[in-house]
Amino acid sequence: MPQTFAVIMAGGVGARFWPRSRERSPKQFLEILGGGTMIENTLSRLKPLVDQSNVFVVTNRIQADIVRQLVPEMPSSNVLAEPIGRNTAACVGLSALWINRVDPDALMVVLPADHIVLNTEEFLRILQLALRVAQEKDALVTIGIKPTHPETGYGYIQSAEEEIDRNEYRSQGVYRVKTFAEKPNLETAERFLESGDFLWNSGIFVWKASVILRELEIHLPELHEQLLDVRASIGTPVYEQTLEHAYRIIRSISIDYGIMEKAGNVYVVKGDFGWSDVGSWDEVVRLTPTDDAGNSIRGRTILVDSNNNYVDAGKKIVATIGVDDLIIISTDDAVLVCKKERSQEVKEVVDFIRRKQMNEYL
Amino acid sequence: MPQTFAVIMAGGVGARFWPRSRERSPKQFLEILGGGTMIENTLSRLKPLVDQSNVFVVTNRIQADIVRQLVPEMPSSNVLAEPIGRNTAACVGLSALWINRVDPDALMVVLPADHIVLNTEEFLRILQLALRVAQEKDALVTIGIKPTHPETGYGYIQSAEEEIDRNEYRSQGVYRVKTFAEKPNLETAERFLESGDFLWNSGIFVWKASVILRELEIHLPELHEQLLDVRASIGTPVYEQTLEHAYRIIRSISIDYGIMEKAGNVYVVKGDFGWSDVGSWDEVVRLTPTDDAGNSIRGRTILVDSNNNYVDAGKKIVATIGVDDLIIISTDDAVLVCKKERSQEVKEVVDFIRRKQMNEYL
Repeated sequence: MPQTFAVIMAGGVGARFWPRSRERSPKQFLEILGGGTMIENTLSRLKPLVDQSNVFVVTNRIQADIVRQLVPEMPSSNVLAEPIGRNTAACVGLSALWINRVDPDALMVVLPADHIVLNTEEFLRILQLALRVAQEKDALVTIGIKPTHPETGYGYIQSAEEEIDRNEYRSQGVYRVKTFAEKPNLETAERFLESGDFLWNSGIFVWKASVILRELEIHLPELHEQLLDVRASIGTPVYEQTLEHAYRIIRSISIDYGIMEKAGNVYVVKGDFGWSDVGSWDEVVRLTPTDDAGNSIRGRTILVDSNNNYVDAGKKIVATIGVDDLIIISTDDAVLVCKKERSQEVKEVVDFIRRKQMNEYL
Repeated sequence: MPQTFAVIMAGGVGARFWPRSRERSPKQFLEILGGGTMIENTLSRLKPLVDQSNVFVVTNRIQADIVRQLVPEMPSSNVLAEPIGRNTAACVGLSALWINRVDPDALMVVLPADHIVLNTEEFLRILQLALRVAQEKDALVTIGIKPTHPETGYGYIQSAEEEIDRNEYRSQGVYRVKTFAEKPNLETAERFLESGDFLWNSGIFVWKASVILRELEIHLPELHEQLLDVRASIGTPVYEQTLEHAYRIIRSISIDYGIMEKAGNVYVVKGDFGWSDVGSWDEVVRLTPTDDAGNSIRGRTILVDSNNNYVDAGKKIVATIGVDDLIIISTDDAVLVCKKERSQEVKEVVDFIRRKQMNEYL
């Protein structure tokens, strides 16, 4: 039986959770919802499925050190530091070649470090099902989430006919993929939800390392060629140099766009395990319980006649008087006061900071 | 000609400007409106009228050190430190006996450290007029401010017949006082405004030191007795001890209630010099110019689609998204987010902090 590996993609810069998230402490390193950092939770969720020594984390150089400190039990060489961010295709390719080198038949699960899953048991059952499909069909398998509302913040996967050629797949929600759809507008999202055959694209993938490397060779040959050079340099003094050269050359492209939309043997397994990519403060607000006044609070707060607010005081004290429906985030050096349902515009704040080169606030 | 002295009352704890004002940095030591601290501005405003060496500041022990640092040119002995706060009658009595000791005929102007005056020239003209009335009539003179709106945050002075027995007073707005009124409700304040004979009680007083000491002897004999002991101890090693004993015994009473409402020879001089006691953040907001979006900002801010806000970022950065009509104050350890026109409730926040003994935030 081939070994199963997991690849945690942890390269995000976390602009959406400003001012809590920063370049040096992006979302995956935050306790956004309490109870441990997102990356720690992602790792611990996988424990029943994947040996600790078979877990890789792909991230940037700054964050690689943080990961090594945060998860000291992980072999240091399992933390792969990319010289620069080149989107998910490069990230997947780099981890696949490392895994393929350990076990040519290896199966791998690729997943972001900063998602939440409420039902771990169901999550693991779906991954196991996806691993079986990947193993038996040499397929590229994605996990599609059964949508609960017309979300405009996610990409969608349209499923085709259900896979029924093997009895055990019947009614287990394994489908051929018809198409991938970008983040829709609300009208389109509502149509997607009604149609019943569109699923949220979770960004979780399952395949054999050998299979994804072959697909990379076909659809992104330049990337594949660079990866071969990198592979040859593993364990030699020129590894870092070769990696840096490769990343300078290869173009930035997502695995969805570069491979999944073009490959032939693509499946989606439908999952329903309380998943969210927690992409904004508003999403955090929705996932956080409230008190009788509709407020969610973290840290020291004094709320006078204030309702339906989300207040994270950090290490300070936050007092409010007569305010409703606000998201208030206080950190050591910054404060955000944002009307609820407007938190996607946090990106504009970060863009402004970047434009003005106020780098201490990035 | 007798000398003129000034007494700056600077004992306030400044709860109303939390979180900017604290026990160790009350309102009078803040640059609430920019351009110097309020106490520095109060001192510099008096310069044409009173010699620097004739200015006394009465405050508490903690703030006495701050005053000495802030105004090094003031003789250290002119900063009178009260052992505990005992309201304005004690404060006036203590300063009057010091002044009376220097010059038995001295005139003195008593005024709070934390008011603003937009028209200094007119302010000085009114004080000079009040000094003349105090000198010629051995009177207790108050400055009443011509009201511009039915303010409920101030006490009022009702004027009686105008003083016309001397030609030069005619049409200069010197009146006998009919009565003092506490802070009214809105209805009463509107009636006061209509009547035309009610003025805002500015808390600024002018009199001879000898005259106020005599009035203290008549109306607050226990206080006067204690002051005599204190006077005898000035310049001796037991001064501090005597002062502490006196302040422990005397009761806390305002000069308005203890003297002004009871004395016979009380005058009010009507002034109109852009005065405000700046008693709340809302008052600061009203006194601060705004940009085209109605926002007033201090410090580093990023306002996205936000209008009519007052934002003081302190040493941090404050970002807002889609919020209107807020007062946002950020300090090293605390943040206030208050709906406009609700800033009088800042007191409730401070009361809560005091009740919970979160003393680091006081």
